[in-house]
Amino acid sequence: MSSKKRYEDLGFAKLDFSRASRTGYHEVIFGEGKSIKQAGDIFARLAKDNETVILTRANPEMGDYVLSLCPDAVYHPTARIAEKHNRAKSPVGFVAVATGGTADEPVAEEAAVVLEAFGSRVERFYDIGVAGVHRIFDNLDGLKKANCIIAVAGMEGALPSVIGGLVSVPLIAVPTSVGYGANLGGVTTLLSMLCSCAAGVSVVNIDNGFGAAYQADMINKMVAKSGGKLRI
Amino acid sequence: MSSKKRYEDLGFAKLDFSRASRTGYHEVIFGEGKSIKQAGDIFARLAKDNETVILTRANPEMGDYVLSLCPDAVYHPTARIAEKHNRAKSPVGFVAVATGGTADEPVAEEAAVVLEAFGSRVERFYDIGVAGVHRIFDNLDGLKKANCIIAVAGMEGALPSVIGGLVSVPLIAVPTSVGYGANLGGVTTLLSMLCSCAAGVSVVNIDNGFGAAYQADMINKMVAKSGGKLRI
Amino acid sequence: MSSKKRYEDLGFAKLDFSRASRTGYHEVIFGEGKSIKQAGDIFARLAKDNETVILTRANPEMGDYVLSLCPDAVYHPTARIAEKHNRAKSPVGFVAVATGGTADEPVAEEAAVVLEAFGSRVERFYDIGVAGVHRIFDNLDGLKKANCIIAVAGMEGALPSVIGGLVSVPLIAVPTSVGYGANLGGVTTLLSMLCSCAAGVSVVNIDNGFGAAYQADMINKMVAKSGGKLRI
Amino acid sequence: MSSKKRYEDLGFAKLDFSRASRTGYHEVIFGEGKSIKQAGDIFARLAKDNETVILTRANPEMGDYVLSLCPDAVYHPTARIAEKHNRAKSPVGFVAVATGGTADEPVAEEAAVVLEAFGSRVERFYDIGVAGVHRIFDNLDGLKKANCIIAVAGMEGALPSVIGGLVSVPLIAVPTSVGYGANLGGVTTLLSMLCSCAAGVSVVNIDNGFGAAYQADMINKMVAKSGGKLRI
Amino acid sequence: MSSKKRYEDLGFAKLDFSRASRTGYHEVIFGEGKSIKQAGDIFARLAKDNETVILTRANPEMGDYVLSLCPDAVYHPTARIAEKHNRAKSPVGFVAVATGGTADEPVAEEAAVVLEAFGSRVERFYDIGVAGVHRIFDNLDGLKKANCIIAVAGMEGALPSVIGGLVSVPLIAVPTSVGYGANLGGVTTLLSMLCSCAAGVSVVNIDNGFGAAYQADMINKMVAKSGGKLRI
Amino acid sequence: MSSKKRYEDLGFAKLDFSRASRTGYHEVIFGEGKSIKQAGDIFARLAKDNETVILTRANPEMGDYVLSLCPDAVYHPTARIAEKHNRAKSPVGFVAVATGGTADEPVAEEAAVVLEAFGSRVERFYDIGVAGVHRIFDNLDGLKKANCIIAVAGMEGALPSVIGGLVSVPLIAVPTSVGYGANLGGVTTLLSMLCSCAAGVSVVNIDNGFGAAYQADMINKMVAKSGGKLRI
Amino acid sequence: MSSKKRYEDLGFAKLDFSRASRTGYHEVIFGEGKSIKQAGDIFARLAKDNETVILTRANPEMGDYVLSLCPDAVYHPTARIAEKHNRAKSPVGFVAVATGGTADEPVAEEAAVVLEAFGSRVERFYDIGVAGVHRIFDNLDGLKKANCIIAVAGMEGALPSVIGGLVSVPLIAVPTSVGYGANLGGVTTLLSMLCSCAAGVSVVNIDNGFGAAYQADMINKMVAKSGGKLRI
Amino acid sequence: MSSKKRYEDLGFAKLDFSRASRTGYHEVIFGEGKSIKQAGDIFARLAKDNETVILTRANPEMGDYVLSLCPDAVYHPTARIAEKHNRAKSPVGFVAVATGGTADEPVAEEAAVVLEAFGSRVERFYDIGVAGVHRIFDNLDGLKKANCIIAVAGMEGALPSVIGGLVSVPLIAVPTSVGYGANLGGVTTLLSMLCSCAAGVSVVNIDNGFGAAYQADMINKMVAKSGGKLRI
Repeated sequence: MSSKKRYEDLGFAKLDFSRASRTGYHEVIFGEGKSIKQAGDIFARLAKDNETVILTRANPEMGDYVLSLCPDAVYHPTARIAEKHNRAKSPVGFVAVATGGTADEPVAEEAAVVLEAFGSRVERFYDIGVAGVHRIFDNLDGLKKANCIIAVAGMEGALPSVIGGLVSVPLIAVPTSVGYGANLGGVTTLLSMLCSCAAGVSVVNIDNGFGAAYQADMINKMVAKSGGKLRI
Repeated sequence: MSSKKRYEDLGFAKLDFSRASRTGYHEVIFGEGKSIKQAGDIFARLAKDNETVILTRANPEMGDYVLSLCPDAVYHPTARIAEKHNRAKSPVGFVAVATGGTADEPVAEEAAVVLEAFGSRVERFYDIGVAGVHRIFDNLDGLKKANCIIAVAGMEGALPSVIGGLVSVPLIAVPTSVGYGANLGGVTTLLSMLCSCAAGVSVVNIDNGFGAAYQADMINKMVAKSGGKLRI
Repeated sequence: MSSKKRYEDLGFAKLDFSRASRTGYHEVIFGEGKSIKQAGDIFARLAKDNETVILTRANPEMGDYVLSLCPDAVYHPTARIAEKHNRAKSPVGFVAVATGGTADEPVAEEAAVVLEAFGSRVERFYDIGVAGVHRIFDNLDGLKKANCIIAVAGMEGALPSVIGGLVSVPLIAVPTSVGYGANLGGVTTLLSMLCSCAAGVSVVNIDNGFGAAYQADMINKMVAKSGGKLRI
Repeated sequence: MSSKKRYEDLGFAKLDFSRASRTGYHEVIFGEGKSIKQAGDIFARLAKDNETVILTRANPEMGDYVLSLCPDAVYHPTARIAEKHNRAKSPVGFVAVATGGTADEPVAEEAAVVLEAFGSRVERFYDIGVAGVHRIFDNLDGLKKANCIIAVAGMEGALPSVIGGLVSVPLIAVPTSVGYGANLGGVTTLLSMLCSCAAGVSVVNIDNGFGAAYQADMINKMVAKSGGKLRI
Repeated sequence: MSSKKRYEDLGFAKLDFSRASRTGYHEVIFGEGKSIKQAGDIFARLAKDNETVILTRANPEMGDYVLSLCPDAVYHPTARIAEKHNRAKSPVGFVAVATGGTADEPVAEEAAVVLEAFGSRVERFYDIGVAGVHRIFDNLDGLKKANCIIAVAGMEGALPSVIGGLVSVPLIAVPTSVGYGANLGGVTTLLSMLCSCAAGVSVVNIDNGFGAAYQADMINKMVAKSGGKLRI
Repeated sequence: MSSKKRYEDLGFAKLDFSRASRTGYHEVIFGEGKSIKQAGDIFARLAKDNETVILTRANPEMGDYVLSLCPDAVYHPTARIAEKHNRAKSPVGFVAVATGGTADEPVAEEAAVVLEAFGSRVERFYDIGVAGVHRIFDNLDGLKKANCIIAVAGMEGALPSVIGGLVSVPLIAVPTSVGYGANLGGVTTLLSMLCSCAAGVSVVNIDNGFGAAYQADMINKMVAKSGGKLRI
Repeated sequence: MSSKKRYEDLGFAKLDFSRASRTGYHEVIFGEGKSIKQAGDIFARLAKDNETVILTRANPEMGDYVLSLCPDAVYHPTARIAEKHNRAKSPVGFVAVATGGTADEPVAEEAAVVLEAFGSRVERFYDIGVAGVHRIFDNLDGLKKANCIIAVAGMEGALPSVIGGLVSVPLIAVPTSVGYGANLGGVTTLLSMLCSCAAGVSVVNIDNGFGAAYQADMINKMVAKSGGKLRI
Repeated sequence: MSSKKRYEDLGFAKLDFSRASRTGYHEVIFGEGKSIKQAGDIFARLAKDNETVILTRANPEMGDYVLSLCPDAVYHPTARIAEKHNRAKSPVGFVAVATGGTADEPVAEEAAVVLEAFGSRVERFYDIGVAGVHRIFDNLDGLKKANCIIAVAGMEGALPSVIGGLVSVPLIAVPTSVGYGANLGGVTTLLSMLCSCAAGVSVVNIDNGFGAAYQADMINKMVAKSGGKLRI
């Protein structure tokens, strides 16, 4: 295939139309560093051909502009995401998204909203951090039923270790930049999670809720497609 | 349940017998920092009750001692693993283990041998690093069929990004400490992988082949159990 | 007072005899970097005038030499400590020393043996790390009774956070250099503990069991002297 | 106990009502990252049931809003704290709060005001840094009488070492982010304090006056409750 | 020669007039940290005597001021460069400038515009990053014809490795500060490129498009002057 | 072309026979981490089909073994290189290799010997570091005639800046791990060179003489092929 | 002497009146982090009793306020210093202040103005950086006559090494935060200077012109007082 | 002058004979990284023409070899220095060398022995670290009389700050690599000293006793030559 057919050039961006056939996923727009108009126009262009369009790291003004172009899109202020997907379809499988504290919520919501736009069923287990570890036990039955768990935490990043020691589900850890001083902008949390004493834990970049969601969605759908673990 | 029933105390170690019921996996022995006798005796004790026993980071002397106690165990010198498992059972599913160069092989073998001991079917795609990127294309059909890919690389750690952009399979990246100078003992590789421009990539600690195998096994078995993606 | 009276010069070291009056504690000998003869001779010299003498970071040969000079001294191989103290005295108060895993034991023993030589009562809670968090709950009643808790852990260093969220006792966290790769020789554990989401946690240097014991002993004795919390 | 009874959900935050029974301390509100309204409303809700309520990292506008809701609260501009506590009760024990220089005062005040709100008696020893070491000697008698000393310093962070070598009181060191260049935002101060050549020193995160106060309060009250060292 | 003749002092800057004879290149003005008036006045002064004048890191206001003084200058907003050169001359040789993604464009344009002002022929190969590695193959024939390749990339910085393994042309890698979290402001990209498994790759500072262009221009002209590799 | 034809598998290594057609250079063997027998056998196998074979990072024993297999090979102890090339051919062009001090010589020799094996003419300018800057001026005429300069230095790494400000030749800087303390194993030298105030300087990894030689050879040959600058 | 007599407490600051007798220098006011009013009032208070008063890191508004209180003070905008000293006295000795580039001027001026206020004679050698190393030779005769040289540079920080290799005068190196990317905010410059291959070089903190001036002044005056090297 | 006359080439080293005329100091031999024979032969060659020859970082075997060649040389085992100088000359001036603890002694001796070989009078003030700050006061009168103070310390590196606040003498701080964990091999000590709150402190590289001695010698001699401060 020639390169001409695989891209569409909007002047300020090349849209990659062979991506879905290559990876099974359409391109997701990363809003940071784009102008409101650029992000919105890419969204609108993709929305012409695709059922699902997702724009992450979108501030409220960006969200407003997208909605003015695509009235069927939705803007999620905590997740900072504008997205459009087929809301009639039933979500499949089950991904659990857990957080240590309320400050981790924006990153967790980025993950949860992306998963929902991709068509995965999500349940949120927020504010169950290790400084009150009984909260994890209160939610253990729910966590155990997931096909994949995303654990979002800042500071010492201990949440994935504690959950990972209690379940047999693939767990993706997302360090957040919540903390100060010795936290080094989330780098300590990141390194700490990579040293987790619980096996079965892998890690994505700081604040990268989208990346965790992307991998969790692949796992969840591969399992769900064939019956896999019990889900509702 | 009392704590007495959940552990057995060998004096120098407490064996955690509730782990399998908690996480679905028996305890794996980490050989580094243990004496040959300690590691071997734990192996022998676990082998009495369990079909599968795995000892990682075992030097050849440790391997010899294990085999003297458990003649049905096998020692893998490149992987530095001694293990015993039911070789009559057919391996399930399909996990691909890829490396950038030959120096990454010990870490990749740690992953592959653990997966095989856990009962997952493994295919090795070694020495396909990005400095000769045609090698990835030569192997792409095989990689695409996996339920999970483990990509092991040192130096600039670009292998996961290139593979991740070509497939729609969950990919776990393992940085190795292969490199010098600006590589900082693998830390540059680790951070580089965390910044991968390919979505769907998560990362484990430097040289942590075992950790990647553990998560890949969970994903592979959940998918395989129910038919999931096609496998041979 | 003239400086002459406050020191004794052994040639290779100046012994600080005003330290006890200044701080309430006699000088403790740090064995690392000293020759066997130097360390042993300082020990013997201090043993002439003091009831309690402690030599930390002492390898077995150093220990043998000390015992040849002072037959009433004891060498603790795991703690790497040679010490002499009045074993007829009852230990006072109660300090709990907890570890995450067996590899943390040498550092924990350094703390425990120093505390016992100082005259504090110690209880060990070893191998109760967060990857099997039920082990903390099994030991919670004991931990709650302490005047001070020392929590020793490597890797992600989450033990102090989990314990700290469950008790109201001053907790001193000791990071260990147990780990590899992203652990950065214990620096990740150290920084992680400093970011603990549990309040009431303070931290000492990597592997510094002695430092934790010193502060814990001060707290324990101040509390115990006056009845404080219940102790046996 | 069900999780419903242990939390109250304000929508934007879950209030942990079992915390006091678990740790002996009510939840303290961390103002940073919360809106003025969120912080104020949590304060007001907690003030209904608790004698003591503390909000740290509160800017003046946040303070004004709290006072408009709770006229018996007090706002401390240097400490950036709004708090309410029973001012009729006599403070107990004695905690010394020392600083190296005037720039360390906000962090020291955070510690001092939290201690006073918790009910501990505090004495301030400000601006006694090591560049004019005679100032420490001028204040040594006072420092020696404390049940616990909090030493707050920036730059090279030498204050805890000098004080720690002169007293036999548990000392908690608080590094501040006061400095530039090689100070690395307080990281140099933090690491320097962890390397203190004085025993009996433990360290909390950069600028974490609250954390130091929390531990100091536990120590002080345990000692004071039973007569311990002489105070008042 | 006396120092007086080699400089001209504008009060706020010394213009180095011996530079061209020393290095073959006139001084290039670095706009960052200079006031609009300072930068513009230096530009105007140099434009009196030189055919080619270049001002990098110039914001739009700086560009406007330069154009008001030198109407034959051109301002390039993406490259943030104001420059004047003899547009009648044919560009020589061939330098390829490649980028991984659209966010790398400003740095790539800095390189491309400097090369064009110096008189080198440039071809742009933008947005051909490794997450869609087929894009490199689509452009391989063009890249192979260059006398020098500049590869500009952020995040994991894998572009130089992949191109470097496919061509036999000197390749200068430019890391960009595009990324977040583990990217550490481009430092990870920089270190990663220095660890490239492809030989024949050298690296310049983060975002230093100018430096790469300067060296590429020297290589290109030395080759082109004598026929070297085939070019148009 | 099938992958079978592009590699030869020696069991412990895959020899890449398409590399020369892809990049113009045969594979160079990196001795570090290979056994003496492995390195020697690869050398012997490549020597059957190729005029030029190079083995870097070879200790003397490795060199002896290579020479026992290939009597026409030469071992260079300072450069730690074993190589075979057609010594009858005249070297082309001119590359200058400069060092700051005698301790940089092994890295410089690695570069020089690789260049000579590749067929480039090399002149050495050793021990001309900036602490005696007159030594650079003594050698300036020679340096100016090169098609490419490789500047090898440790410690503060200032050599490339000083030379780069005096010539108009592409300059590749090689930081060495010569230094201690604040040198951080060469990382300071590396970063310092990347910040060079002289334009036209690019940098390779610490101690990477081979990488610098590889790029310099490409530049030198492209220029020399067509007459370019004057060479002998 | 009682502590009362050694300080004067302005409420927001304690003025140390014993400093001059202790160290020979009056307290210098550090403006950063102080309000305009605080800095100005301290200046005015000190000006009552002292011939020399210096306020560093003072922005123009701070300068204006000081001059409104003390009409005989002078504000230096580049140095960001307000100072008052006896302008009738002849400056003594000779300190040379050199810079690499124009961006280093504010730090150099901080040093120069402090020296002049202290009463040392200063000569400026600005913009003589190593990228045009002939500029150092043009100024060598002047530099050699100084009692002390302050060398201020950013980026790779090579200026002190080159000067230090040519003179026999104590040289204090001041790294500046001028640079980007691999410069790490001046940390690379700092570490590079500490690795200088020239002996006789010591280093102060990043941008710390004041600190360098303070030490240079001590050296200069000790030499000048007794005839030492030639001075006016 | 031609370059031939300025060097003598021993094959493995170029001896710089113009150094003394350029800087006033003969070349000092750095033993680390040189063979015993190389170091000894350079020593012997320099001893033919120079009154003073110094070889630093010399192990005992190196010392023995030097003494076998030059019977009038002396080897200092703690300082690891072999040197020859005119012992009949009276040392001039006064430099104080202070240490924090006994482990800092080798670095301090390197400084002291170099100073003595250069002809400066030295007094040692060892083991006066800040953990027993009264020891500094005991020695203050002596320290105040020096023309220059060298303060050698490891761990938190507070010694220069405390001394610097009490004297008005130029002070050169030498961080040592004595410490562990958070000390980061002396880097924490180095950075801490650079942040010293005492003015008049400059810093050299970790363990660089020689560098401190070199600068101190210049200061001391410039002052002493002209009477300067009182010395005995």
